[in-house]
Amino acid sequence: MTDSSMMIGQGFDAHRFAPAGTGRPLWVAGLHWPVPEGADDAQAARYEGIEGDSDGDVAAHALIDALLSAAGLGDIGLLFGVGAEAHGAGMHGVDMLRETAAYLAAQGFTPTSASVVIVGNRPKIGARRDEAEAVLSEAVGCRVSVTATTTDHMGFTGRGEGIAAIANALVARED
Amino acid sequence: MTDSSMMIGQGFDAHRFAPAGTGRPLWVAGLHWPVPEGADDAQAARYEGIEGDSDGDVAAHALIDALLSAAGLGDIGLLFGVGAEAHGAGMHGVDMLRETAAYLAAQGFTPTSASVVIVGNRPKIGARRDEAEAVLSEAVGCRVSVTATTTDHMGFTGRGEGIAAIANALVARED
Amino acid sequence: MTDSSMMIGQGFDAHRFAPAGTGRPLWVAGLHWPVPEGADDAQAARYEGIEGDSDGDVAAHALIDALLSAAGLGDIGLLFGVGAEAHGAGMHGVDMLRETAAYLAAQGFTPTSASVVIVGNRPKIGARRDEAEAVLSEAVGCRVSVTATTTDHMGFTGRGEGIAAIANALVARED
Ligand SMILES: [Zn+2]
Ligand SMILES: [Zn+2]
Ligand SMILES: [Zn+2]
Repeated sequence: MTDSSMMIGQGFDAHRFAPAGTGRPLWVAGLHWPVPEGADDAQAARYEGIEGDSDGDVAAHALIDALLSAAGLGDIGLLFGVGAEAHGAGMHGVDMLRETAAYLAAQGFTPTSASVVIVGNRPKIGARRDEAEAVLSEAVGCRVSVTATTTDHMGFTGRGEGIAAIANALVARED
Repeated sequence: MTDSSMMIGQGFDAHRFAPAGTGRPLWVAGLHWPVPEGADDAQAARYEGIEGDSDGDVAAHALIDALLSAAGLGDIGLLFGVGAEAHGAGMHGVDMLRETAAYLAAQGFTPTSASVVIVGNRPKIGARRDEAEAVLSEAVGCRVSVTATTTDHMGFTGRGEGIAAIANALVARED
Repeated sequence: MTDSSMMIGQGFDAHRFAPAGTGRPLWVAGLHWPVPEGADDAQAARYEGIEGDSDGDVAAHALIDALLSAAGLGDIGLLFGVGAEAHGAGMHGVDMLRETAAYLAAQGFTPTSASVVIVGNRPKIGARRDEAEAVLSEAVGCRVSVTATTTDHMGFTGRGEGIAAIANALVARED
């Protein structure tokens, strides 16, 4: 017996960290990561934000592409536009994710599970994984799992230039 | 209730762009990307092809590995061989993909959905995504979704050295 | 009809190769890759092991994260700890994978299929893929597919600095 109504999608995203001292808020995995009180400049630099038209939340963006791919409904650029004039400009990734889930529902698709791996040196996702999973799961409307890993100082993520995310998702099509 | 006949596969591929001026045709996502008429050298360089024994179509190759993995039938090297003497040498990726789908069918497996993310600076996949999805879906025999993203000038894809693709697939085993 | 008991997970891992001459055993994809008898130094360097608290088996680690994500049970750091004092320190990846599968079973989850792509210049996985798939499948308790690819001398895997793996998995929740 085959459940051919269950469809799979893959997502990937990568963005560059803003230069230290920019003061851009850091948003990843649907969460704001504020600079700890009393942090010195070196510590604060670890909470510098991510460049991009939206908040640069690679986890949310990779999940959006995984969900849209699973439903066969294009990608984040098609839904939100590209560049400073885009509909998604200035939006938080988690709000884009919520809008994506609503778009899928309107087209007759239901996300049933999703997962994202965040690849980067910072922030330390593990300490707030439960919180990230709760926020992302609420936005998508199904269980979203979050894991994180580094690349042992190798490559652009290992050198701290940027952060990446790989996501997958299952979506059911209503018959 | 569990549908244990539904199986998952992961695929990845990366290839180097040929040096500018090589004149190698660019094939990605099952499509030929011709140099626009009247392009100057700098513009033409953006349509330089991908190195490899076949046409270097990373999207097709990653999908092939995702499909073979899902079915537990090895990988692209096993099915098509490696190097200039290989069965796959000179074949277009999309034709290899069609042959892969036929091989799965002969072994009792049916692809039910697949998805691929293309990571690179060029070509601009979004402008021809519908066309790419139509060609790849026809070759596989199920819905294949295509998305594309860059790495914000980071890493080998961001520097324009090469192009990569990450794919996943669901395959049903006939009972 | 939708089988909402089937859930998806994504995993990724990357580790650095130990410097040539370290004499660290090479373990990847659940297998030991011994230095061939009579190998000279250059040949032996291709069998130098992977750095890390455990054996650095990126394929096993990526599969663990894919399985835990699919079940919504955290990640490898949560289950095995991080650093030299961790529960996973000194364990082979394949034994961690077996323990992960037992943990899923105890929580009411059954892995139904999984797949991993190994990205790196060495070892040559294809020559022992059947063996790797047998060992990993036995550890997880379902079919695990293994493929491998290179990045054409690009990036940290292409320069031989390290090795990476991307995995996905389907897990069924008992109703
Ligand atoms: Zn993004
Ligand atoms: Zn290839
Ligand atoms: Zn690891």
